[in-house]
Amino acid sequence: MEDNWCELAIKSFETHEQEAIERLCQLIRFPTISAEFAERQADFNACADWLRHEMSGIGLENVRVISLNNSPPLVYAEWLAAGESAATLLIYGHYDVVPVDPLDRWTTPPFEPHLRDNRLYGRGASDDKGQFWAILCAIEACLRSGGKLPLNLKILLEGEEEALSSHLASFLQENRTKLRCDGILIADMDALHPQVPLIMYGTRGNCTLEVRLQGPRRELHSGTYGGGVENPLNVLVRLLASIQDGKTRRILVPGFYDAVRAMTAQEQAFLEDLPITDEMGLAITGAPALAGEEGYPLKARISARPTFEVHGICGGYCGEGVKTIIPASVHAKLSFRLVPDQDPQVIGELVKAYLLRQAPPTVKMEVSLWGKAHPATVDTDAAIVQAGKRALQRGFGAPPRFVRGGGSIPILNILQELLHPHILLTGFGLPQDNTHSIDESFSLSQFRNGVRSMIYLFEELTNKNGHVS
Amino acid sequence: MEDNWCELAIKSFETHEQEAIERLCQLIRFPTISAEFAERQADFNACADWLRHEMSGIGLENVRVISLNNSPPLVYAEWLAAGESAATLLIYGHYDVVPVDPLDRWTTPPFEPHLRDNRLYGRGASDDKGQFWAILCAIEACLRSGGKLPLNLKILLEGEEEALSSHLASFLQENRTKLRCDGILIADMDALHPQVPLIMYGTRGNCTLEVRLQGPRRELHSGTYGGGVENPLNVLVRLLASIQDGKTRRILVPGFYDAVRAMTAQEQAFLEDLPITDEMGLAITGAPALAGEEGYPLKARISARPTFEVHGICGGYCGEGVKTIIPASVHAKLSFRLVPDQDPQVIGELVKAYLLRQAPPTVKMEVSLWGKAHPATVDTDAAIVQAGKRALQRGFGAPPRFVRGGGSIPILNILQELLHPHILLTGFGLPQDNTHSIDESFSLSQFRNGVRSMIYLFEELTNKNGHVS
Repeated sequence: MEDNWCELAIKSFETHEQEAIERLCQLIRFPTISAEFAERQADFNACADWLRHEMSGIGLENVRVISLNNSPPLVYAEWLAAGESAATLLIYGHYDVVPVDPLDRWTTPPFEPHLRDNRLYGRGASDDKGQFWAILCAIEACLRSGGKLPLNLKILLEGEEEALSSHLASFLQENRTKLRCDGILIADMDALHPQVPLIMYGTRGNCTLEVRLQGPRRELHSGTYGGGVENPLNVLVRLLASIQDGKTRRILVPGFYDAVRAMTAQEQAFLEDLPITDEMGLAITGAPALAGEEGYPLKARISARPTFEVHGICGGYCGEGVKTIIPASVHAKLSFRLVPDQDPQVIGELVKAYLLRQAPPTVKMEVSLWGKAHPATVDTDAAIVQAGKRALQRGFGAPPRFVRGGGSIPILNILQELLHPHILLTGFGLPQDNTHSIDESFSLSQFRNGVRSMIYLFEELTNKNGHVS
Repeated sequence: MEDNWCELAIKSFETHEQEAIERLCQLIRFPTISAEFAERQADFNACADWLRHEMSGIGLENVRVISLNNSPPLVYAEWLAAGESAATLLIYGHYDVVPVDPLDRWTTPPFEPHLRDNRLYGRGASDDKGQFWAILCAIEACLRSGGKLPLNLKILLEGEEEALSSHLASFLQENRTKLRCDGILIADMDALHPQVPLIMYGTRGNCTLEVRLQGPRRELHSGTYGGGVENPLNVLVRLLASIQDGKTRRILVPGFYDAVRAMTAQEQAFLEDLPITDEMGLAITGAPALAGEEGYPLKARISARPTFEVHGICGGYCGEGVKTIIPASVHAKLSFRLVPDQDPQVIGELVKAYLLRQAPPTVKMEVSLWGKAHPATVDTDAAIVQAGKRALQRGFGAPPRFVRGGGSIPILNILQELLHPHILLTGFGLPQDNTHSIDESFSLSQFRNGVRSMIYLFEELTNKNGHVS
């Protein structure tokens, strides 16, 4: 390849940037909410078809929509013309998004993308449609400007990452040989700031539970029956309150912390190098004051420590005015973020046992384990991670920091186990993108620098180290 | 009046019973949910007009719909032809109903009344449309069969009893003279059993609050921010759990029990005479086990002791699947049932202060006092109460018991203060009517015996005691 292919590709992208953004808008318009897949199958199929069409147009080969039973289709493409001696990079992304309620609080509708103040607004604009789109734009620019890439690519887009990727593992298992690669790239996270790109060397796991309480046979008048039968909401608040100490914010479930692995000296150094302050946390979130586990700084609490969150308490009356009822059946949606080496199945069982021990005989309780994602870590000395470090430095003009991510990428350790342990996990989002919330958006300058970084990455992966190791 | 006017009136009712039930169905069809009055003004106006038309048709006089500012209209009627020497009874009822959600769990739609198994199903069938309709049917039967009544009547129907009658007090205050009476009749409660009619000599009060917590500016991703900022739902469950002891079920708000008045020996005797057992409570409610304050039997817990109930916890995610968010703003709807002499305003302030003392600086908290109903008691030796006792014995063939009601009739002590302290508070509902719940219904045999009792009441009020005292 020519010496300046990289700069030519960037120029080509810049020439076609407007068009790239318009095509991203088309992608965002598909309401691919994986939590609502049952009602939205047609939208998922349409989105997958659109992606197949686009990826073929870019010049990728063997582009296919892969249907799975009762779950969103996968989209696969490859470019293997670099030859057998060249390295092969597997790129993972997801085209599904989280739900959009409360819909009425969005400034513009979530599936009608809107540009304002150099940001593209819409559900999935950042997580993850806009970010994998940046990688596809980088590939397109290389193929358009020079007709080729210095390495082989395999691209796998899934449609239920936000529903814990529950069908992907078996697909990967069945297609291990076909998906063989020398390293994996995922862009599905936020930088800290436009001048502080991040490389994530680990993610928290997640254990999601539903606690369901049944009291009386049906909703009762709280005047007639109040004081005589249990109000399941009264019980539920006590049970949930018992999970965490109100002062120290330690989780009180016996055995919960047993598997938490201490951080190494290098990890401590990474943590200290992170320019995260309480002031930043307050400014970004608008919270009246920060909170969290006693004895840890903010940057550790949001990444290296496990958490407990109540996401919803459902079944009571939330309509207009007052309705003085004793609800018959209520449930809560909970989750625990987990750190290495906590096992979501083990944690789920501990929590379930803890709650069942406390449940009074006045209600029937069911605890179901809904979702499980293992925490994961990646070797920061791996060649692909170091190449990513240099590429981000070039693309963003600032050195990336190493960080453990607070969120969960359920598929991360499945990809590691089944395909390759070395993963470059980075991203072009920003904290102000409001992923998973109302008014999600993606900064266009982050998008632009993201595309540039990915073009540099293709070079870094082949230049100094010859091959992805 | 003729000696047997009473039996003639009952015969007349029996002849027209089918038609009376069909007209009650018409009344139930109006969706007069007072919590949704803003959107349902037209329905309230239509219902009030229908009532005016019906009451005129019965032979009542001076029938009027009285519009109030931004609240449901009142319907008033009178029959004063018994003359100035005869006693005057004021009858109170309400044509508004509570909300109907969860709508999809009704066997037949709440505002499409349906007859099955000798019960009329529909919202308001029992509370209170069916019950005041029984009184109107009694009046109609008397006027139809004999052309007259042995006493004067004033009838006042309101449309926001379920929204705590917030506009009625000032109307009563302004119309005290016009509404002057010798006693008051309300039929808005359940009997214990067809063979155990009840006379309520007191009601619990109610203090309804909303607790609102604001955490971060907007909903946040629990992976990215979890452990860093407060989850207002986590705080809310701790605050709500702090209100009541999980074991004794005593309310822990300091001062909460200070004003609770001890029961007299007569009240204790009434309580002991009540055939309410734990087995009945279990059978009626279908609860796995009964619950409530330690040290009191069921029949005291549901009537003579105050309670705390959580009715709804709102603002988290309750849609399909999982959405791992930290909600920005959440709120809870609470109420406390109160007994003499607890003052709802005082209790509300105590609770508010208790919660505010505990609220951490990580959230902004607002506690608003929504509704207040004073607890009330009635003199069981009053002539109208004793006449009611005899009338119910004749109508149902069984002696009524005296009971303190667990529910709240907000207007009760306002009626007592402004119009007359002597109130006969009874009703023809049954525990299985599911008032305030799905599949509300009204037993047709209770309806029939209710009408008979009311005809006997008119006689009892004039026979042996001459006048209502």
